[in-house]
Amino acid sequence: MPARFPLPPGSMIGVLGGGQLGRMLALAAARLGFDVTILEPEPDSPASRVAARTLEAPYDDREALMTLAATCDVVTFEFENVPAAVVEQLEMLGALAAPGKRPLAIAQDRVSEKQFFQGLGIATADFADIAGPDDIAAALPQLGGRALLKTRREGYDGKGQTWVEGAADAEAAWRRIGGKPAILEAKVPFVRELSVIAARGRSGEVACYPVGENRHENGVLRTTLAPAHISAATRAEAEAIATKTLEALDYVGVIGVELFELHDGALRVNEFAPRVHNSGHWTLDGCEVDQFEQHVRAVAGWPLGKTAALAEVEMTNLLGFEADAWQALAAEPDARVWLYGKREARAGRKMGHVNRLRPMKESQP
Amino acid sequence: MPARFPLPPGSMIGVLGGGQLGRMLALAAARLGFDVTILEPEPDSPASRVAARTLEAPYDDREALMTLAATCDVVTFEFENVPAAVVEQLEMLGALAAPGKRPLAIAQDRVSEKQFFQGLGIATADFADIAGPDDIAAALPQLGGRALLKTRREGYDGKGQTWVEGAADAEAAWRRIGGKPAILEAKVPFVRELSVIAARGRSGEVACYPVGENRHENGVLRTTLAPAHISAATRAEAEAIATKTLEALDYVGVIGVELFELHDGALRVNEFAPRVHNSGHWTLDGCEVDQFEQHVRAVAGWPLGKTAALAEVEMTNLLGFEADAWQALAAEPDARVWLYGKREARAGRKMGHVNRLRPMKESQP
Repeated sequence: MPARFPLPPGSMIGVLGGGQLGRMLALAAARLGFDVTILEPEPDSPASRVAARTLEAPYDDREALMTLAATCDVVTFEFENVPAAVVEQLEMLGALAAPGKRPLAIAQDRVSEKQFFQGLGIATADFADIAGPDDIAAALPQLGGRALLKTRREGYDGKGQTWVEGAADAEAAWRRIGGKPAILEAKVPFVRELSVIAARGRSGEVACYPVGENRHENGVLRTTLAPAHISAATRAEAEAIATKTLEALDYVGVIGVELFELHDGALRVNEFAPRVHNSGHWTLDGCEVDQFEQHVRAVAGWPLGKTAALAEVEMTNLLGFEADAWQALAAEPDARVWLYGKREARAGRKMGHVNRLRPMKESQP
Repeated sequence: MPARFPLPPGSMIGVLGGGQLGRMLALAAARLGFDVTILEPEPDSPASRVAARTLEAPYDDREALMTLAATCDVVTFEFENVPAAVVEQLEMLGALAAPGKRPLAIAQDRVSEKQFFQGLGIATADFADIAGPDDIAAALPQLGGRALLKTRREGYDGKGQTWVEGAADAEAAWRRIGGKPAILEAKVPFVRELSVIAARGRSGEVACYPVGENRHENGVLRTTLAPAHISAATRAEAEAIATKTLEALDYVGVIGVELFELHDGALRVNEFAPRVHNSGHWTLDGCEVDQFEQHVRAVAGWPLGKTAALAEVEMTNLLGFEADAWQALAAEPDARVWLYGKREARAGRKMGHVNRLRPMKESQP
């Protein structure tokens, strides 16, 4: 690793994005004695209120990027919609960005992402690259007649995607996603949605957290149960997928890899997020070293921390006005409430989460 | 409790003092969705770098206190040497201070503190109120001929105290502590130093953490082992002392009560700190709700959290250049490193701590 690593305490870590992930990264960084600079266009962001410094500017603001490059010992990001060009610019300005622009560029384009996994021999849903409604009609038969159309870029939490109900729906579906370059994905007959949160350090070491079992509602993560109740073989496959992905990307930091489990325990990868991940929030109370500290350790060149589960955790997102139940949640024994400091509760907005802890069953890893 | 409690997330909590205790309070407050304003005279303080707002001013700065009173929903403090007059002024300006000025005033004067405990029927060391060297010589015989002289005010971490070796040493001892009003304490033949970290909420409920066993070096806390290996009766007595103290003070927040254990398991109280306490740092990794979150919960009128130990923890302070071992500490399994972000390591300065975790023995509470 470059000579400047491991970064000593007191170093400055830059974070692109000031939402809850940036906030929890900043809290973790502070525990290890680091300072944090947030770059975020919105005023009064959740992360800005726990960071040593906030640059309130668009992500591509030249002056802000120059300041980040000049004052931060490493720069990372809390979400994958930062333009890869911004990370490239940061690097040209002399900044060290982690996980770097390649994972970001791949994750930002669903077609590149699927191709990347297939190139590694990791099974995904069957898919077709879609440039217009004619492509949809043409690809639909070999994708099962009913398939999921997603914009190649910028969709998240179920936005920018729609089911195509048949060839006759091709035109309308194309319009529903805004008429943008897209991917058409065959339906995966999964029995469970899983995810692996894993980290790779600057020396190349990899550490996987126990697999989480996720339930989505309306495209948004609702709960994660971890460690998931899966076979040892499925867990090993999930870890192998995460490890192969991290190594192929020469990745530094925490990654979230979303998986579908089929009825026979086989896995299909859905996508990866080149950052800390909502389905890893259970680690905040379920592990000695949580995913946020793990990410800070990785990008700072520190040794990775232990990822074993200390408890079985059910993480539930608090969406919109659900966070108004904070009083009841705070009174619940063995429940740990995390609130993100967002000023305004809008329907579906992630306002916080609660981790409910149960003792580990002996049989679990 | 006053109608404004419990404080909703998004409320502002004021903290007098910007050291490591303020920093860890700010981190805990952020987890629950609160914002924090720090008042601290020193620039670039550890807490200021994780707080929404910092007022850099002396603790008695009128304008800063007006700002705190006007903008904070509750004000607390991270150390007991804030002048009680400052808290009084804050209250006159309309602020709600917790734990409030009475615990502060009592804790600031070692004679008042001892008298307070004795008034509650809680055993302390025998002592005498000292106004000059003649008082020392007069009191020494009934205090065992050799006794500990401490300034009534402002000593901490072993500063402002000296052993009086005999009547002939009275004059010199008086000069060694700077010739200030003092207390002369009989030596307590203790076998162990213990402490109880306890909290009282706004509804009067009390929660005690398992007792910690403390080792001091040169008057400074070196390690805490928790839960302490003590009898159930000693634990019950320690909890009774803390509870009685909290109730007598109509206290709101976390308190640290230092105790001496005698050879027969009986306890003598040494002193209390009206704040989160160094010997409670083990709770950061040993309990679901640590002492910092507990203090925030209490002053905000939230229900208190669970205080059971999840692991046996040995907390070791990192003093001065010991924190330079961060690389080795970060690589140690089951060790959790906390670094305070202090810019300059001076001999004996508390730079961080490490919590080493071991599984709980079944027989422990």
